[in-house]
Amino acid sequence: MTTKKGFLITIEGCEGCGKTTQSEMLKQYLESKGLTVILTREPGGSGVAEQIRNILLNPKNTISPFCELMLYEASRTQHLQEVIKPNLEKGYVVICDRFTDSTLAYQGYARGIDKDTIKKLNDIATESIKPDLTIYLDINPSAGIKKATTVNKGSLTGGDRIERESISFHNKVRKGFLELAKKYPNRIKKIKTSKIVKKTQKQINIEIDKFFKKKKIYV
Amino acid sequence: MTTKKGFLITIEGCEGCGKTTQSEMLKQYLESKGLTVILTREPGGSGVAEQIRNILLNPKNTISPFCELMLYEASRTQHLQEVIKPNLEKGYVVICDRFTDSTLAYQGYARGIDKDTIKKLNDIATESIKPDLTIYLDINPSAGIKKATTVNKGSLTGGDRIERESISFHNKVRKGFLELAKKYPNRIKKIKTSKIVKKTQKQINIEIDKFFKKKKIYV
Repeated sequence: MTTKKGFLITIEGCEGCGKTTQSEMLKQYLESKGLTVILTREPGGSGVAEQIRNILLNPKNTISPFCELMLYEASRTQHLQEVIKPNLEKGYVVICDRFTDSTLAYQGYARGIDKDTIKKLNDIATESIKPDLTIYLDINPSAGIKKATTVNKGSLTGGDRIERESISFHNKVRKGFLELAKKYPNRIKKIKTSKIVKKTQKQINIEIDKFFKKKKIYV
Repeated sequence: MTTKKGFLITIEGCEGCGKTTQSEMLKQYLESKGLTVILTREPGGSGVAEQIRNILLNPKNTISPFCELMLYEASRTQHLQEVIKPNLEKGYVVICDRFTDSTLAYQGYARGIDKDTIKKLNDIATESIKPDLTIYLDINPSAGIKKATTVNKGSLTGGDRIERESISFHNKVRKGFLELAKKYPNRIKKIKTSKIVKKTQKQINIEIDKFFKKKKIYV
């Protein structure tokens, strides 16, 4: 259990949707409003979780769907204990680049693992801590993959293990995110990724302002 | 699903109980009877699973109980897909040094994670493949730990992450194994580890002979 006082904001979307850039800009924006912000990511975000991330994203590794799911949940629970939960307890805003919705979209909708099993594992791994707000950045996977594999300078050989999946896989992931956004409209705000970064940012900040005004955190 | 034709024999027990030595001797014994035997181990036993093993056993790593459980299950499912299942389908005897009972004993009885949750995860990870026979080697944890940390020449600093746990932890593990052996007397055969390796081996072979004679594999 957590004595949660802060806010968990997750940023979700397909490869190349601009999550990482927008997460960083959002951190700065919220800091300009006087909030303390912790920016983190999944998989990874802390010691052991980063070691798990290396296994998950190494394109040389062949990983079965259930093994992949278990590794994501292992990384999640460790990261939650070490980073997310303590910072929420301090009353900070935690921005997480990917979280539970990614597992439903990638391992559930795209890999075909039973979604109820995933939800149960998500609940155990997160101690039922849910995001207060989720920004889903929508992009056409064909455009996203091109962007992701060009931007990631570390992966000269054409993207990490997940980015290298087929376009039909990434289309299923997107379909998953779109269904989740429809299912949880109060929590998940869908924003179309624009080619102009500042335009996307403006749309995100509108949702962010609405959220924090409702919470009476700033006016 | 598997079209299982072979036999899965698991060797279980606390640290330093002699599992590894006895598994190797059992392999030779069964080969002398004309059987094809695959000897493998958990965690690990194949590419990605061995990478997970390295995370699990590194004494520098701090790992939360649920993260640990997820990592064991991730390793298990990958190893099952790559090693255990295909060899059982070929009709071979697979000897596995640790399997699902270890997860119940270590993560369930000793770490205190809900046993029904572990059983469900074990079932998913193994596709409900159960050991045909389990040899549980019983040893007093105080003696076992001393033996394990002396024998493992790779761990000069005093044992791996699990071996370094307290004696009270290892006592709980043993209690777990003893309860499991009581609960499943048809499958789990408890054998007291003797200081004389050949004496333990003899006891194991009595159980092995009984099993294979009953199955009419050899007379």
